[in-house]
Amino acid sequence: MTIIRCNCGNDAFYLRRHSGEALCKKCFVRSVERTVLRTIKRESLFEPKDRIMVALSGGKDSIALLCILSKIERRYDTEIFAVTIDEGVRGYREEGINIAKKVAGELGIEHYVVSFKEAYGNSLEEIYNMASSKGVKLLGCTFCGVLRRRLINEAAIKFGANKVATGHNLDDEAQTIFINLMRSDVARMIRLGAKPLKIRKGFVPRVKPLRYIPEKEIGIYVYLKGYPLYERECPYVRASLRDEVRDILNRIEQRHPGTKFSIVRAADKLSSLLKGEVGEIKYCQKCGSPSGREVCRMCELLSLLGLNSEVYLN
Amino acid sequence: MTIIRCNCGNDAFYLRRHSGEALCKKCFVRSVERTVLRTIKRESLFEPKDRIMVALSGGKDSIALLCILSKIERRYDTEIFAVTIDEGVRGYREEGINIAKKVAGELGIEHYVVSFKEAYGNSLEEIYNMASSKGVKLLGCTFCGVLRRRLINEAAIKFGANKVATGHNLDDEAQTIFINLMRSDVARMIRLGAKPLKIRKGFVPRVKPLRYIPEKEIGIYVYLKGYPLYERECPYVRASLRDEVRDILNRIEQRHPGTKFSIVRAADKLSSLLKGEVGEIKYCQKCGSPSGREVCRMCELLSLLGLNSEVYLN
Repeated sequence: MTIIRCNCGNDAFYLRRHSGEALCKKCFVRSVERTVLRTIKRESLFEPKDRIMVALSGGKDSIALLCILSKIERRYDTEIFAVTIDEGVRGYREEGINIAKKVAGELGIEHYVVSFKEAYGNSLEEIYNMASSKGVKLLGCTFCGVLRRRLINEAAIKFGANKVATGHNLDDEAQTIFINLMRSDVARMIRLGAKPLKIRKGFVPRVKPLRYIPEKEIGIYVYLKGYPLYERECPYVRASLRDEVRDILNRIEQRHPGTKFSIVRAADKLSSLLKGEVGEIKYCQKCGSPSGREVCRMCELLSLLGLNSEVYLN
Repeated sequence: MTIIRCNCGNDAFYLRRHSGEALCKKCFVRSVERTVLRTIKRESLFEPKDRIMVALSGGKDSIALLCILSKIERRYDTEIFAVTIDEGVRGYREEGINIAKKVAGELGIEHYVVSFKEAYGNSLEEIYNMASSKGVKLLGCTFCGVLRRRLINEAAIKFGANKVATGHNLDDEAQTIFINLMRSDVARMIRLGAKPLKIRKGFVPRVKPLRYIPEKEIGIYVYLKGYPLYERECPYVRASLRDEVRDILNRIEQRHPGTKFSIVRAADKLSSLLKGEVGEIKYCQKCGSPSGREVCRMCELLSLLGLNSEVYLN
């Protein structure tokens, strides 16, 4: 058996198929961190004096993000804190919150937990029960995702952040581009980037420093850094189009390494060619989310359930 | 068993999943023809006095195209003729040529056969044998495709056409868009359309009236019109990325009817947003094909084989 060596001379433990690099553990960790730093620099994600809120679920992506950004904080003149959203799903969310608390504590990073119950008056469990008793059909993760994103924005405002960093990785981004292509939703395909094309009033801009890191490599990074991998699945998860697309892209990537990168790069190119020319995006009059309608489907559902769609954390 | 009826009252024989229409045979044929006419009109593919060359392989797509365009000829003030390229692959091409001749004859359309032998001095068979004896690796269908497209252009010039119509269908187009996304080739993703974005000197513009007709429907159309379906496979065909992508898109379409349409529509939207802003496309100095290099790979291969890459049909 031939032992493959890393450039540094150590035994390689990871072969990065899309680039052909063989990496030892130390060089792998350094390489992931360097890619994130390059993204931040190239895309000007941060500026001095930024107060950045990390959306910290406790999953591997946001743990890796927090860990890498905590190193940057020392180097750049930025301030970082983390917020975990507690949807209130018993037997699922507690573990994520515990991991988030533990990691933020170890890294010495200010950390808050903000709950659906506090913001919307009900936990996700209560909202789902309410919906099923009223015969209202909720759209699984889509619904929860919108409530969560809205709450992240409110938390960012409350805690004085001028930027929100999320753990979206290369796989997430390639999947979203593919789904939007399938739906012919060019505006969403293009709007997506490591940072927003346009600043919208009332919305704290979101940046995605992990946009060019494959999901697999994030898992390995977190494992090598010794943080717990939290893989429990939410009981409300349903098979989705995203699952199908994930399988498709994984199979293509297996046969044609580098395809996920190429897809994201294509969207980047289109985005820079089209800057500001994607046509008018309409926003929901109630919550401000992008929507083709005057009042978005989410606000409509919330009001069907008699819930307040205007969230204000005090 | 419930009998599903077409809008006209006849028994339906085809359910168009992406639109939910149930169609009888007559309405199906009319619907396909109407879609092609709508494409021609909306995209202004033809103008009065056009002399249109149909690239007629004898396969279902080009047979359907010829059949539909022959009806238009009477309605619009255009002239149509057909050309079949004979690559010179024995046991494969003859049947296509016979079908092409027969159908063109029945429709009363002027028809020519133009061969690789005549244009390049050698048939495809001879070129492949030459290459393998010289140890040169040819790129299967890609290589033949380029030679064929170049010859189609020369034939159009020789026979005085100002437009070339090809039988590319919805499946072909969605596959090409997907392949270009996988390769991050935004320029090719966008350049593609029912008609060219820019007129290039020396190139007769190509139009694709079947761009919005699914491959399956073209097969049914040709069958219903009573023309032979010619499905023999070229012995030089090799498994390709396109085959993989075809499978992927067929599987997605099965679960999400309308996806192929959406993909092509997305490219259309991007194309119209980006008109003329795709950046400079470079062309091969020898043959004028789009290429990142000064002399394209095809011209390089042809000269390796001692073959002339400048084709002039006299």
